[in-house]
Amino acid sequence: MKRPGPTIRAKVWKIRSEVAAEETDVIAAEEPMEVRVETGKESDRTTTSLSVTMRTPGNDFELAAGFLLTEGIVVRKRDIVRIEYCTDPGIAQEYNIVSAVIRTDVAFQADRLSRHFYMTSSCGVCGKTSLEAVRVAARHPMPPGSPRVDRETIASMPERLRQDQALFSETGGLHAAGLFDDHGKLLSLREDVGRHNAVDKVIGEAFLADRVPLSDRILAVSGRASFEIMQKAAVAGVPIVVAVGAPSSLAVSLADEFGMTLVGFARAGRFNVYAGRERVANGLAEMDPG
Amino acid sequence: MKRPGPTIRAKVWKIRSEVAAEETDVIAAEEPMEVRVETGKESDRTTTSLSVTMRTPGNDFELAAGFLLTEGIVVRKRDIVRIEYCTDPGIAQEYNIVSAVIRTDVAFQADRLSRHFYMTSSCGVCGKTSLEAVRVAARHPMPPGSPRVDRETIASMPERLRQDQALFSETGGLHAAGLFDDHGKLLSLREDVGRHNAVDKVIGEAFLADRVPLSDRILAVSGRASFEIMQKAAVAGVPIVVAVGAPSSLAVSLADEFGMTLVGFARAGRFNVYAGRERVANGLAEMDPG
Repeated sequence: MKRPGPTIRAKVWKIRSEVAAEETDVIAAEEPMEVRVETGKESDRTTTSLSVTMRTPGNDFELAAGFLLTEGIVVRKRDIVRIEYCTDPGIAQEYNIVSAVIRTDVAFQADRLSRHFYMTSSCGVCGKTSLEAVRVAARHPMPPGSPRVDRETIASMPERLRQDQALFSETGGLHAAGLFDDHGKLLSLREDVGRHNAVDKVIGEAFLADRVPLSDRILAVSGRASFEIMQKAAVAGVPIVVAVGAPSSLAVSLADEFGMTLVGFARAGRFNVYAGRERVANGLAEMDPG
Repeated sequence: MKRPGPTIRAKVWKIRSEVAAEETDVIAAEEPMEVRVETGKESDRTTTSLSVTMRTPGNDFELAAGFLLTEGIVVRKRDIVRIEYCTDPGIAQEYNIVSAVIRTDVAFQADRLSRHFYMTSSCGVCGKTSLEAVRVAARHPMPPGSPRVDRETIASMPERLRQDQALFSETGGLHAAGLFDDHGKLLSLREDVGRHNAVDKVIGEAFLADRVPLSDRILAVSGRASFEIMQKAAVAGVPIVVAVGAPSSLAVSLADEFGMTLVGFARAGRFNVYAGRERVANGLAEMDPG
């Protein structure tokens, strides 16, 4: 198997008013990626398949590391011994299977894991709420008012994110997630057809560099803020999430519950703060809503 | 538990240039929904939990029916005896759990099911390609050139979809899926925080009305066209998919493989045809790409 790239070329029939023209276009690549975990001693290793996600190839080890962290499988960087592509003989899709070897002293059992996934993804099912389930995994304190970020800095993030989206510029079809410092400097950016994958990649990169918890960072996302995005930010200890799109009800609840700041509809100098407004620095005239 | 609605109200701090104002805003609701299948005779029934999806409450039975069809669990409308909310005594989240009672003569085994999910979602894993896995479930023929749809009709769909998005207008935060006839008449529209859920709802509505295969219908979606969206359309027998956003590489491959028409970037009278152009009616000047 050839290693897949983040884009492909395809013949496209472009219709503009009364005119049709065949052109070659660049399209965002989408491929399945399986995440596996290998546990136990070198001589007696157990392989467990955790998940398959449709992702844009590239930064696959970051994606796996971010996924393992934000889904609560591992906690510290040293819990992961190494990450590698599948090397089973005769396998057809080796670049679409990523294995993480986990330290033998990390408590990992397949049945615990399924309970964990049950809990974080299925919420109401077992009588727990979604938020209760996340509370287990989100162990980093997020002090109110820290960091404090200027209004202008927050407002500048969507544009900054967009400028650096190399693949989006080519394809028009990728989500982005970026980590900013509190002065609005973009530290890293990742793109993917899946919004949650872009977030896992950007968090995974920081995790592999041992920079989690990301307690002085801002996570900006090109799309909407859903429960899943907020849950990943909470587990990585990111106190501020800035979304270009709308938030969902559960995203707002989660931000409230964990003392996070949630900004939505961040566009052209305007934005809405749905939770944790004490992290948005002042210099604003409070207008009476009446 | 109160039955959840599709939107909630929340206090929002709106920042516009130098001014901040607190307002009440309408936000798209996101809640987990578990889909269960009940099999076997009335006296000896087995309940299997299939999936939990984060969805916008509303049209929950359609969502369940569409999911069961597009994931290949059921084939005909009569395979489903009834769909109901969970009625277990003492359960806290009854409106977030939907049970489908399946006819006793439908071949359904939990282990087959897990193999099925393994296949449709995990693709490369077992050596099969994603497309091979879908081929099993997509059994409706899609003759080339049928239906044939005018350029103007295709170009009008995104605007038509947007006009009818009641919840989007309120919240700015929902995906839409619509079924059109070949004259561009919008027959049904469903909204959800999850794009795949909006598609399952609109297909589920048609499935419950016994209108599948949808061989003379066009599915229009407000976002991008991913593998998952095309897979659902293929299983429901929809030959034409029109996306407002970009397609992914695997969406194009799947359309090619199944002889479907895939339109992307449909906006303001312009669109790109990525596959199956013979269903786009002529009257177009072919322009030399040179």
